[in-house]
Amino acid sequence: MATLQQLDQTQLQQLLTELTARYEQYRARGLKLDMSRGKPGAGQLDLTNDMLTCLRPEDGFRSEAGIDVRNYGLMDGIPEMKRIFSRLLGVPEENLIVAGNSSLNLMFDYICTAFAKGVCGRTPWSREEKLKFLCPAPGYDRHFAITEYFGFELITVPMTGTGPDMDRVEDLVRDPAVKGIWCVPMYSNPDGITYSDETVRRFAALKPAAPDFRIMWDNAYCVHHLTDTPDRLLNLFEEARARGNEDLVLEFASTSKISFPGAGVAVVAASAANIADIKSRMKVQTIGFDKINMLRHARYFKDADGVLAHMKKQAALLRPHFEIVLQTLERELGPLGIARWHKPNGGYFVSVNLLPGCAKETVRLCREAGVVLTGAGATFPYGRDPQDSNLRIAPTFPPLDELQTAIDLFCICAQIASVKKRLGTL
Amino acid sequence: MATLQQLDQTQLQQLLTELTARYEQYRARGLKLDMSRGKPGAGQLDLTNDMLTCLRPEDGFRSEAGIDVRNYGLMDGIPEMKRIFSRLLGVPEENLIVAGNSSLNLMFDYICTAFAKGVCGRTPWSREEKLKFLCPAPGYDRHFAITEYFGFELITVPMTGTGPDMDRVEDLVRDPAVKGIWCVPMYSNPDGITYSDETVRRFAALKPAAPDFRIMWDNAYCVHHLTDTPDRLLNLFEEARARGNEDLVLEFASTSKISFPGAGVAVVAASAANIADIKSRMKVQTIGFDKINMLRHARYFKDADGVLAHMKKQAALLRPHFEIVLQTLERELGPLGIARWHKPNGGYFVSVNLLPGCAKETVRLCREAGVVLTGAGATFPYGRDPQDSNLRIAPTFPPLDELQTAIDLFCICAQIASVKKRLGTL
Repeated sequence: MATLQQLDQTQLQQLLTELTARYEQYRARGLKLDMSRGKPGAGQLDLTNDMLTCLRPEDGFRSEAGIDVRNYGLMDGIPEMKRIFSRLLGVPEENLIVAGNSSLNLMFDYICTAFAKGVCGRTPWSREEKLKFLCPAPGYDRHFAITEYFGFELITVPMTGTGPDMDRVEDLVRDPAVKGIWCVPMYSNPDGITYSDETVRRFAALKPAAPDFRIMWDNAYCVHHLTDTPDRLLNLFEEARARGNEDLVLEFASTSKISFPGAGVAVVAASAANIADIKSRMKVQTIGFDKINMLRHARYFKDADGVLAHMKKQAALLRPHFEIVLQTLERELGPLGIARWHKPNGGYFVSVNLLPGCAKETVRLCREAGVVLTGAGATFPYGRDPQDSNLRIAPTFPPLDELQTAIDLFCICAQIASVKKRLGTL
Repeated sequence: MATLQQLDQTQLQQLLTELTARYEQYRARGLKLDMSRGKPGAGQLDLTNDMLTCLRPEDGFRSEAGIDVRNYGLMDGIPEMKRIFSRLLGVPEENLIVAGNSSLNLMFDYICTAFAKGVCGRTPWSREEKLKFLCPAPGYDRHFAITEYFGFELITVPMTGTGPDMDRVEDLVRDPAVKGIWCVPMYSNPDGITYSDETVRRFAALKPAAPDFRIMWDNAYCVHHLTDTPDRLLNLFEEARARGNEDLVLEFASTSKISFPGAGVAVVAASAANIADIKSRMKVQTIGFDKINMLRHARYFKDADGVLAHMKKQAALLRPHFEIVLQTLERELGPLGIARWHKPNGGYFVSVNLLPGCAKETVRLCREAGVVLTGAGATFPYGRDPQDSNLRIAPTFPPLDELQTAIDLFCICAQIASVKKRLGTL
């Protein structure tokens, strides 16, 4: 099969006619499919259904801390849940706060408080002339949205195969208006890339001009391996501490994609100074988080090994979803030379880079045939992909048959957009 | 029995000797009792234990909204929980957001966002020269702490038998620096007073100088009746709407003291404009709250009547606690004329006003004999009771025998402090 590059006008026109005919067949089916968000499928959720009835009065409701989890108290979480996260993240228990149902909410609250009250007693960000935040892109739209909400200028940092472009990061942090960076260091959203050891070490050694610069290390997919050859992420927390730089790091995680999205348990890991800073806000913000749900998780999983064993079951369910997407991309787009993507060893996404100028048209065509994708540009600050090239595919939620249909259609749409681009009619 | 006022120096000295002897007997017992916080007792929590196993896979996990509550989505809460709160609060479902586990957290987030981003697009409070917040006192220390955290000047408004002194409120809101007022309108914390119809109507008709003034209406004890002659609270939301003043009101409630503290469900009720404003923040802050816990509550209680029936069971458990406290106060302090208190029809507290200058000494004496009370002054802004008179007693948590011991000791301590005060030795 020839690449698109090798076809002449007539051949391109003929290909477009064929593709359009196939597209119209899909459109006639009145599909209603969704590949837009990284949601677990129902089968994954079923795996932990027993957690919902695992707390029984005969076992009592006391945490190891000796308190009744049904009542007020223990603002920073029960020790048995701290122990599990401590093992999973490689961070000492005393550096953890287990809090709430959403790591995103913990990140928002951190930025919001830094904006309103300052970081560790420093000047509130709201009082600074100019605020900037580094956004490795393609990246996670909800991260970018938080700093956009608070009026930061979002600075795009290109993603590479080993993480954000660290030359660029090291250069940008010389500006004291740059207050932090968003990172999904393992199985990054959307690329599925894990930061290299060198990248992590350069983060750990970072010397930003702003004393209140913070690395927002969203380790959302720390145990979300898909294959038997998982990636390995260096421990930023340890690396930063070894360099006396531990106040730089705020690490976040949750069980949203381990147990239940929205009904999981979230955690923040940080230095003693940062933990004290966060607690000084939390003790005003709440009397405490849902400890019953923490105990539910701790009793169900028992320990970190219980979580890891469970994640192997999830991986077995998820692998076919990723295989369908990757095999179809390989078969339909590969030979034409119109797209690049990374085959991830974990996480929730496949990130596809089309020919420049083809992303929006692909999304439009898909939508009009009943398949919803994450919006083109969503993976970039302000929702604007300067190349109009990157699309995020979320293969986890749709059942396999629907997923196959959706990704087939996606490939047809991407081909149509690419041909039109080559023909100069897009 | 003579009141303290009627005793001469010698009689007072003799009484002090007797009281001190009794006090030392208690102190020798090495008590460790706690009447400091409004926590439910274990018996109350046991009433809802079945809620923790009521979600069964065979019933499915779908909300009436058609969505799987185990997954992402539906940021503002499931309709069945909205319906329950709608009936309990008398506010239409479309004016509710069911969110998180803590109404205090919702209040903090509201103030925090208003500080950082402004109310409904207005100037962020952080950019104003001077900020003031009205604090009816005695009141709830955690309310005051939120506005203190954000640098507001806390203005004390005296509580009366019908709610805050409304003449004073109406006068103070002429100052545009005054941005709001904290209220616990039903079975107020700590007085147990329910605002009169006139007070509610005057709140509904308030015309503050600040366009972003907000009434923080914390209806924490809306269904927490203790007696068969419950108080009745006029619906502020309706009254305000009737006057075109609905944007003034933010009402909060939760099931923290209905089901489980920390593991309940919280709600905010507000006008369409305020709801839209809150959602514009929430959609950046989180993907959603714990809908599994919402469904757990909705399935367990079934409807608002289910909640009301449950609260009658709680009241039956709580009444003896309040009776012990009230009867002991009546017997030990009443005849001496050294204290005033309101007998509440609901809520979680008994608020005792001792002779001026006696509160701190009473707390100190209690603490040294092993009984922890809420700190003297805690019910006032900045923790400073200008009269050093008010103490909040929380009778719900201790078992009845411990409670009797604790309140007996409290009365002895209050008597000692009062006698010392009369003798001029305090």
